Amino acid sequence: MRAEVPDGLARHLRDADLVDHHVHGAFTGPVDRAGFEAALNEGSTDPVPEFMTQFDSPIGLAIRRWCAPVLGLEPLASGDEYWSRRAQFGPDELSGRFLRAAGVARWVVDTGFKGDQISTPEQMTASSGVAASSILRLERLTEDLLEAGAAAPDYPQAFRAALDRAVADPDTVGVKTIAAYRTGFDVDWSRPDEAAVVESAGRLAARGGELRVDDPVLIAFAVHEAADRGLPIQVHVGFGDRDLDLHRTDPLLLLPLLRTMRPVPVMLLHCYPFHRHAGYLAQAFDHVHFDVGLAINHLGVRSTSLVAEALDTAPFAKQLYSSDAFGPPELHLLGSVLWRRAMGLVLGDWIRTGNCTEADAIRIVDMIGVHNAERVYGFSRRSADSGL
Amino acid sequence: MRAEVPDGLARHLRDADLVDHHVHGAFTGPVDRAGFEAALNEGSTDPVPEFMTQFDSPIGLAIRRWCAPVLGLEPLASGDEYWSRRAQFGPDELSGRFLRAAGVARWVVDTGFKGDQISTPEQMTASSGVAASSILRLERLTEDLLEAGAAAPDYPQAFRAALDRAVADPDTVGVKTIAAYRTGFDVDWSRPDEAAVVESAGRLAARGGELRVDDPVLIAFAVHEAADRGLPIQVHVGFGDRDLDLHRTDPLLLLPLLRTMRPVPVMLLHCYPFHRHAGYLAQAFDHVHFDVGLAINHLGVRSTSLVAEALDTAPFAKQLYSSDAFGPPELHLLGSVLWRRAMGLVLGDWIRTGNCTEADAIRIVDMIGVHNAERVYGFSRRSADSGL
Amino acid sequence: MRAEVPDGLARHLRDADLVDHHVHGAFTGPVDRAGFEAALNEGSTDPVPEFMTQFDSPIGLAIRRWCAPVLGLEPLASGDEYWSRRAQFGPDELSGRFLRAAGVARWVVDTGFKGDQISTPEQMTASSGVAASSILRLERLTEDLLEAGAAAPDYPQAFRAALDRAVADPDTVGVKTIAAYRTGFDVDWSRPDEAAVVESAGRLAARGGELRVDDPVLIAFAVHEAADRGLPIQVHVGFGDRDLDLHRTDPLLLLPLLRTMRPVPVMLLHCYPFHRHAGYLAQAFDHVHFDVGLAINHLGVRSTSLVAEALDTAPFAKQLYSSDAFGPPELHLLGSVLWRRAMGLVLGDWIRTGNCTEADAIRIVDMIGVHNAERVYGFSRRSADSGL
Repeated sequence: MRAEVPDGLARHLRDADLVDHHVHGAFTGPVDRAGFEAALNEGSTDPVPEFMTQFDSPIGLAIRRWCAPVLGLEPLASGDEYWSRRAQFGPDELSGRFLRAAGVARWVVDTGFKGDQISTPEQMTASSGVAASSILRLERLTEDLLEAGAAAPDYPQAFRAALDRAVADPDTVGVKTIAAYRTGFDVDWSRPDEAAVVESAGRLAARGGELRVDDPVLIAFAVHEAADRGLPIQVHVGFGDRDLDLHRTDPLLLLPLLRTMRPVPVMLLHCYPFHRHAGYLAQAFDHVHFDVGLAINHLGVRSTSLVAEALDTAPFAKQLYSSDAFGPPELHLLGSVLWRRAMGLVLGDWIRTGNCTEADAIRIVDMIGVHNAERVYGFSRRSADSGL
Repeated sequence: MRAEVPDGLARHLRDADLVDHHVHGAFTGPVDRAGFEAALNEGSTDPVPEFMTQFDSPIGLAIRRWCAPVLGLEPLASGDEYWSRRAQFGPDELSGRFLRAAGVARWVVDTGFKGDQISTPEQMTASSGVAASSILRLERLTEDLLEAGAAAPDYPQAFRAALDRAVADPDTVGVKTIAAYRTGFDVDWSRPDEAAVVESAGRLAARGGELRVDDPVLIAFAVHEAADRGLPIQVHVGFGDRDLDLHRTDPLLLLPLLRTMRPVPVMLLHCYPFHRHAGYLAQAFDHVHFDVGLAINHLGVRSTSLVAEALDTAPFAKQLYSSDAFGPPELHLLGSVLWRRAMGLVLGDWIRTGNCTEADAIRIVDMIGVHNAERVYGFSRRSADSGL
Repeated sequence: MRAEVPDGLARHLRDADLVDHHVHGAFTGPVDRAGFEAALNEGSTDPVPEFMTQFDSPIGLAIRRWCAPVLGLEPLASGDEYWSRRAQFGPDELSGRFLRAAGVARWVVDTGFKGDQISTPEQMTASSGVAASSILRLERLTEDLLEAGAAAPDYPQAFRAALDRAVADPDTVGVKTIAAYRTGFDVDWSRPDEAAVVESAGRLAARGGELRVDDPVLIAFAVHEAADRGLPIQVHVGFGDRDLDLHRTDPLLLLPLLRTMRPVPVMLLHCYPFHRHAGYLAQAFDHVHFDVGLAINHLGVRSTSLVAEALDTAPFAKQLYSSDAFGPPELHLLGSVLWRRAMGLVLGDWIRTGNCTEADAIRIVDMIGVHNAERVYGFSRRSADSGL
């Protein structure tokens, strides 16, 4: 890359302190090799099959290329060498090394999933030395309320009160919906009336035990309530595990919502393989933004094409950086390193062919990597620069 | 680009007189900066939001790169510099400069939209010194007839007569449907019977005032009537403003129409992000053609990948060039310059790697840029060469 | 390519003996130019139209580039020259030259379509000197049974017995479904009960004459029966002729089947333009594999991008090589040569930019080109190496 990226841009990409606007914690306990390899496969929920190793995949090559040196190995050390070396470190040491190496100035953490196996925002700050904000998962809030025994007739008001309480915490900077996993996007996104919400809440609560909200009425209600409060809303889109019907998470299916909702900032997350659709929406709607996080890690060396395609049509003020790392702290680094690399190759080519200046390229990096997140979540510039 | 494109191909690309087979007029009156920036955003119908400038987008970079020199500025002059300089010119001067610089030998003009703010085909000829033909928009013809008071029982016959009259004008070389905006493509495309057409016409006319046809019966009727007359039919596909349900404009949804219609030349317009689907259809059906106009402008430097992907499967006789420029005359130039640049880079690479000869590349340029349009619309070669 | 691909990888790509895991026979009789050109167009079932030659297409350029030298012509000899020269050879000589030049160690042949015009697996072995295995087409077996007069009530048992008989042949290594052509994928893939199968069989048999199974019940029944027997299942996906509704062959629509079936190896064939979707499925499900055969030939020089995109997310153990050649033996060579070329360019770039070692690249080539097919179909390594 050095040879192909102009010096000033390369330097800026190396030094830029990113906002990772959608990320989860790192493993807090030890993990065996099978667990580690399984954590590198986004789509499957099974162990990696016997006939292969996940090191023989785009993300596996990327781990060997970019993470091995952080553990004192040569780039592209073999999978076996990598695993032997990694096993010599405890979880805290691993988190510390990889999170610090990521060059991230602020983590914006989705705390809604498997919170007990991974680090909290506070622990991420401890590992990395930089600030962490939180994102509230709407489906989790719904489930917590109903599991705690909220009566159906009171549910709408209870949800509003709980949402108000949650976002009163200044560290909570937005909300997220995983409708992609629960209903798909081809549902009725109009604001449900109070009676419909009560009825849905009653039906869900009646199931008892650990609840799983999969009712579009409750999800649409939560999304509109969040929008009423002016909260930025993250939406899981596309790439994810095989529980979701990928074709029903095409962001174009969100058009009815995007056209009619109160226009708070909406962040379409991941989006692969529908990232061109997401870019189209980001240029068509002032309030729509997107990222290609998660997919960057899983595409490894191929993420250059992904990052390039994400620059097809959207204004540069409408895209954000994220890693969507979860579990192995390698992923917190990898997202950052692969994004910097891809932006360098893509923008370096634009500069070299006279299609933008180096100053333009640096401004594009700063917008996508830092400033757009500051704007949509309301971080002040100073706090992001200092990291706290 | 010069270094990467073989000389003969580069020269040919610079000099080729294109047929811009789908284009609109240029602004005839002055426009302020907000209006100019808004006209560079295809998807949105709102002003560009305060937190950004449309110059910070792929199309904005392309304007600075390729249009600044036409106004006497350095390539990549800043957005502010560009705007200051541009403000020194009147609309006629701007149209003249950009339209002449486009190297287009014939404009094929869609006159169906906002005709009062943009130049007529005659005015485009005056600005550019080259011929302009017209495309009749079928939905507009339908609306004009019903607004003028055509009685529903007479409507089928009135439509046929109006269509005959319209296309008797030798300058009208084809028709266009914007079903994408009105119904989506997942409708019944079979030829409706007379009674159904009468009923639909009656229902639409009863609305009164300024009509907006959104009835698949009336649109399918119009399309089949045009095909009966052997008229080339343009179809808006994909990329457009947020009024359309983009996923319902996937050209694959046109399969029922394409399989059963009278096989007059069909031109799928724009097609992004479904351009690979369009290429597939163009190779599967003798009468189907496509372009990637509009999207080329909005992708700017990224249009190279688009042009490359458009060459995936379709025979070279089945693709056409268009800008789909509308409003700022920069767009009439930009489509041409970006297409030439992309074809040079893509075909230059094919030559350099031994995958085609320079003569092959030049023939491909001529087919897509000139000859396929001449064939489908019936222009004689001579008239295209002379530009009149 | 030589200059851009590291020596060791280039040598390995030149010498690797591939398993072509999905292929048909070559023409056994003479073909005229019109028939030859039509056989180069996958999508259309009509003759190539008068206004063009199929040589002016990506696949046509690839024939001129890579097949001309096999007939003693210069690379990129004109279409006319190519045709004149080709006409000097008989069908056996053509098959022999092209099949041997393909560097294939084993053909896995789908014998279910137009078997009388093309070579049998035995004839392919005679032409090429290497082994050929067979794939049983499930829809063909269904039709043969019902045409032979199987009574509906006996059909389920008759199908099971026929399937057992067919796969008792050690040369039959798997089955294939063309549900894409018969029903699309958006059907009920659950295992039908016996009564439903009997009813569907009765309804189909009642049509009489040459039968064409287009009933999802019979197809789902056949697929589950094959899975019960542990047989590898090939599925036609995406790219094909215009008979199919391409958008209804998106492999994501197979999710309900993939989630619930007995997890025998499933091979998604072709997949263009949904190859990124196929790669996603291959990483999400242990038993899912895919290839981009057929499309590689039809994209010609553009197949490099396709091969690159096919490497986006899937582990390298989950992709296979195929040509899907049918008819002109040029296609048996072309798939091989274009795949080797594309892998060399893509992996060569990965090596050059430090993203994998040369040994990694060679292992990736061997997995996709040879070993994965050996594993899923149960070929022993030795037999593949020796070619018999």
